[in-house]
Amino acid sequence: MRVGGEPHRTIWVAPDGWSVRVIDQTRLPDAFEVVTLTTADAMTRAIATMVVRGAPLIGVSGAYGLCLALREDASDASLERAVLTLAEARPTAVNLRWALERMRAALAPLAVSARVDAAYLLAAELADEDVATCEQIGAHGATALLDVFRARGERGALRVLTHCNAGWLATVDWGTALAPLYRLHDQGVPLEVWVDETRPRNQGYLTAWELGQHGVPHTVIADNAGGHYMQRGEVDVVIVGSDRTTRTGDVCNKIGTYLKALAAHDCGVPFFAAVPSSTLDFALRAAGDIPIELRSPAEVSERPGVRAANPAFDVTPARLVTGIITERGVAAATEPALVAMFPERA
Amino acid sequence: MRVGGEPHRTIWVAPDGWSVRVIDQTRLPDAFEVVTLTTADAMTRAIATMVVRGAPLIGVSGAYGLCLALREDASDASLERAVLTLAEARPTAVNLRWALERMRAALAPLAVSARVDAAYLLAAELADEDVATCEQIGAHGATALLDVFRARGERGALRVLTHCNAGWLATVDWGTALAPLYRLHDQGVPLEVWVDETRPRNQGYLTAWELGQHGVPHTVIADNAGGHYMQRGEVDVVIVGSDRTTRTGDVCNKIGTYLKALAAHDCGVPFFAAVPSSTLDFALRAAGDIPIELRSPAEVSERPGVRAANPAFDVTPARLVTGIITERGVAAATEPALVAMFPERA
Repeated sequence: MRVGGEPHRTIWVAPDGWSVRVIDQTRLPDAFEVVTLTTADAMTRAIATMVVRGAPLIGVSGAYGLCLALREDASDASLERAVLTLAEARPTAVNLRWALERMRAALAPLAVSARVDAAYLLAAELADEDVATCEQIGAHGATALLDVFRARGERGALRVLTHCNAGWLATVDWGTALAPLYRLHDQGVPLEVWVDETRPRNQGYLTAWELGQHGVPHTVIADNAGGHYMQRGEVDVVIVGSDRTTRTGDVCNKIGTYLKALAAHDCGVPFFAAVPSSTLDFALRAAGDIPIELRSPAEVSERPGVRAANPAFDVTPARLVTGIITERGVAAATEPALVAMFPERA
Repeated sequence: MRVGGEPHRTIWVAPDGWSVRVIDQTRLPDAFEVVTLTTADAMTRAIATMVVRGAPLIGVSGAYGLCLALREDASDASLERAVLTLAEARPTAVNLRWALERMRAALAPLAVSARVDAAYLLAAELADEDVATCEQIGAHGATALLDVFRARGERGALRVLTHCNAGWLATVDWGTALAPLYRLHDQGVPLEVWVDETRPRNQGYLTAWELGQHGVPHTVIADNAGGHYMQRGEVDVVIVGSDRTTRTGDVCNKIGTYLKALAAHDCGVPFFAAVPSSTLDFALRAAGDIPIELRSPAEVSERPGVRAANPAFDVTPARLVTGIITERGVAAATEPALVAMFPERA
């Protein structure tokens, strides 16, 4: 997407052909800064401290982290160690494990001397795949959202609520939940986006920044306010991303998503999750088995003497989800529908 | 309640016998400062800027504001003007109007020369009444919460979630939603309180401060996190205050309350509102008729270029409310139950 009018991805290989550059998302929206990473350790830290964030992007970041690790040492032991270390950087999003497993499966059979080049090729492939996947999610999601807009007569703007940042910053490009919005905007469909600020880390300001760079009208609200606007009929549709979605359609996403899904259900507002297949965890049936990352209480409050708790994700049960938008189309949030859409994964 | 071990109210008449002192709640919890107010205008500003806040406290503050206005000019015109000006300081909480109407009804028939003394007497009466009311809410609420605790076998601590600040800072003393907790704590019942931080104004830190001063164990969480803890079975009961409750039992309270009520309902967690009768609006049947205050977007974000919206309250439909705790007992959130409890108001 565009930053100051210039097209950009969130991660790319530097002109030296091997070091990895990312946008430092801890500095946005106050400053746009690019960081160059040259070791697997640096990539692990970048993932853990959310310099890079968003399930699809941390998948690709993990892949490039493995490239950097193999460049230092391409042995079997180094490969295994790097897969483990990178996977532990963040526990909830399945994409990180998915990307690392794909890399390991392709690289382990190769001669040690062939691994580095192959790793960079495969990481670039994963990055390009992510862009294509998000573009497809944008197309299918735009159709679904346009149906909602048409059903209420296309008066005024389509009013969309989103939580956290599932935009292009959370992916390599385009985004998941925001991809349909960019597409609709480019088609001339008038939009008005309610952006949850998304405490404690305020990723809503990343979303506001993205939408602003792209010219999409939006309003930031406290996480508390979305239910009220839904009650008042001021939200037509809710769309969010996901960090892991089970084969039964339970959607794990940023903490607070469940509350918005409840309100959408109570108010008859359609609730969509935009989920690339890399985020689908077909091995999981019970959402309770998803590890929920507990981040530092200091992200909630640094006041002396205040005890805080900081779970980073929650699970929205499938019964509250209107549809799951994947790169292959919109599926009902049920096991048969998801299995039918991705039979090779079942 | 106690501040540094010393008993305190939130509002009182200074030793000079006429100027009014309040705790500056915009400075808490960072600093405990007392402000002296000597004009009705100063009181209006104190209410509008939330130096004093909380439905019951702004009712009593309005009454003392009228005292200050009459001291400047006790004429009919001055009385009417002051009632109007003070009432407009905040639109949603009905207590302000309720207290001002009670003052006007008592003072208007009096000789101009008798009004100032009568006003101070009546304001003191309202303040004492509020303390007694909150103490009764504490007693009835404690019984209701103890029933919840017993029903799950009294293991560990009773885990309570609360939103915003409905503690003694929101009243003259004791609080509404927190009064039962202080009572239970004093009776030796082990408590663990989840405190929503309550964006955008973070009144959760007032609650944390209050609970801390009183020695009640508590943990601050982002507003997004309560649903997750309810899903995980880590919340036994939710209790909140109210700024206006209709005769049909719809509870208007701090923005975000509705989302917690939805989660409580979804997870089978009892949801109580602690509502002094001064907060009951028997004239209102339709919750949609409650004016929802829109506060400054700057309370959400002061970032340049960010457009924000800031509704301060939402309405929790009666169907999500387990019980309404009043000074006369716990009523079902229905018109017949509320009318039966306050027949003289119907």
